[in-house]
Amino acid sequence: MILYELGAANGARYSSFSWRTRMALKHKGVAFDTVPVRVSDKAAIAFSGQGRVPILRDGDVVVSDSWKIAEHLEAAHRGGASLFGAAAGHALTRLVNAMVDRHLMAALAPACALSVTGIVDAGDAAHLRAGFEKGFGQTLEALHAGRAGAVKAFRRALDPVRAVLRAQPYLAGAAPAYADYILMSPLQWARIVDPEPVLEADDAVAAWFERMLDLFDGFARAEPARAARA
Amino acid sequence: MILYELGAANGARYSSFSWRTRMALKHKGVAFDTVPVRVSDKAAIAFSGQGRVPILRDGDVVVSDSWKIAEHLEAAHRGGASLFGAAAGHALTRLVNAMVDRHLMAALAPACALSVTGIVDAGDAAHLRAGFEKGFGQTLEALHAGRAGAVKAFRRALDPVRAVLRAQPYLAGAAPAYADYILMSPLQWARIVDPEPVLEADDAVAAWFERMLDLFDGFARAEPARAARA
Repeated sequence: MILYELGAANGARYSSFSWRTRMALKHKGVAFDTVPVRVSDKAAIAFSGQGRVPILRDGDVVVSDSWKIAEHLEAAHRGGASLFGAAAGHALTRLVNAMVDRHLMAALAPACALSVTGIVDAGDAAHLRAGFEKGFGQTLEALHAGRAGAVKAFRRALDPVRAVLRAQPYLAGAAPAYADYILMSPLQWARIVDPEPVLEADDAVAAWFERMLDLFDGFARAEPARAARA
Repeated sequence: MILYELGAANGARYSSFSWRTRMALKHKGVAFDTVPVRVSDKAAIAFSGQGRVPILRDGDVVVSDSWKIAEHLEAAHRGGASLFGAAAGHALTRLVNAMVDRHLMAALAPACALSVTGIVDAGDAAHLRAGFEKGFGQTLEALHAGRAGAVKAFRRALDPVRAVLRAQPYLAGAAPAYADYILMSPLQWARIVDPEPVLEADDAVAAWFERMLDLFDGFARAEPARAARA
């Protein structure tokens, strides 16, 4: 088992991606040697048929890309501890929860805040307005004036999700689970409160969201969109 | 099973957090009724001993907070499909990978880019400089002048991780797994290439990183920090 990885002139093995692989090899309890490669030296890794490290040579198998190496180790070395175990599913869902609440909702709320006040009664509208305006330090009208920028930031914050949905149909894999419901929830909120869409129609996240609306016989779709009510 | 949740004047059930719970209830195949609550009406939910919806009443048990409700459903209704299943562990680790690469590395790279060129040979330094300067549209020296701001943005991007580490010792739960190695890897990169720390010493993420350095008999700690080499 040989790991080809970036090596510095001072001897340091400094690649972030290589460190993921190194830790994964230790986790699996697999012995390995390492070969340092200069970042500008493509010839040293030409054997791999591509130009980037880390590369793992595992007997006759050559795997590049740290994520693919992790999947290879998990599949080929079942004896070791799992790299993606069952307990991790629960624990990582908590991370999704924290990310959606702290990053995605924070990015989305300015775009939809004014719209929410349009669907609740006067008492709730005053309550929500006070909360949003305190939180954002602006009037709802000023926030709304910056809606285009907020929507853009929200879409950008979905970049990692978009990358994941290119590889698998749901965040939780082949079938949806709570991580998907977490991510779906701010989009459902926006769908219900805001007459304007927050995603572009051809966005892979929008296609995933449509699949989420279809689940359980269209359970979430049965709640009318604001655009349909208006 | 009764779900207390925000209701709007137009009839809409618009709470993002409630929608996570609604989908979780459907996922578990559990029948439930719902009770709409105005956001300003604390009296309606005083029975729960706190002031926020969603609240689930499951027989004699009252649970508030969407995350705690999900955990309650998973524990109390084992008959249904798992909300945090084993396959999700693998799938969600992919999301961690995408987030670290697209958000965290993007936030960290400007802080450490100039430092990397100080540990590699002249050929690699030129190669890395060209790549970074093209990617960021600035000279490395200009990037480095903005290091304090980049470090601050990087620390802020770790907010969700910080929240998770208050609830569990590792991203993957009680024991580390590949998700932890992914997150560890940019911090190990920074430790190796940059003489200045990127985390504050009293940061919970820094304490977690120290535990990661201790794993496998100090395997990752054995790679010298730049501060120690300098």
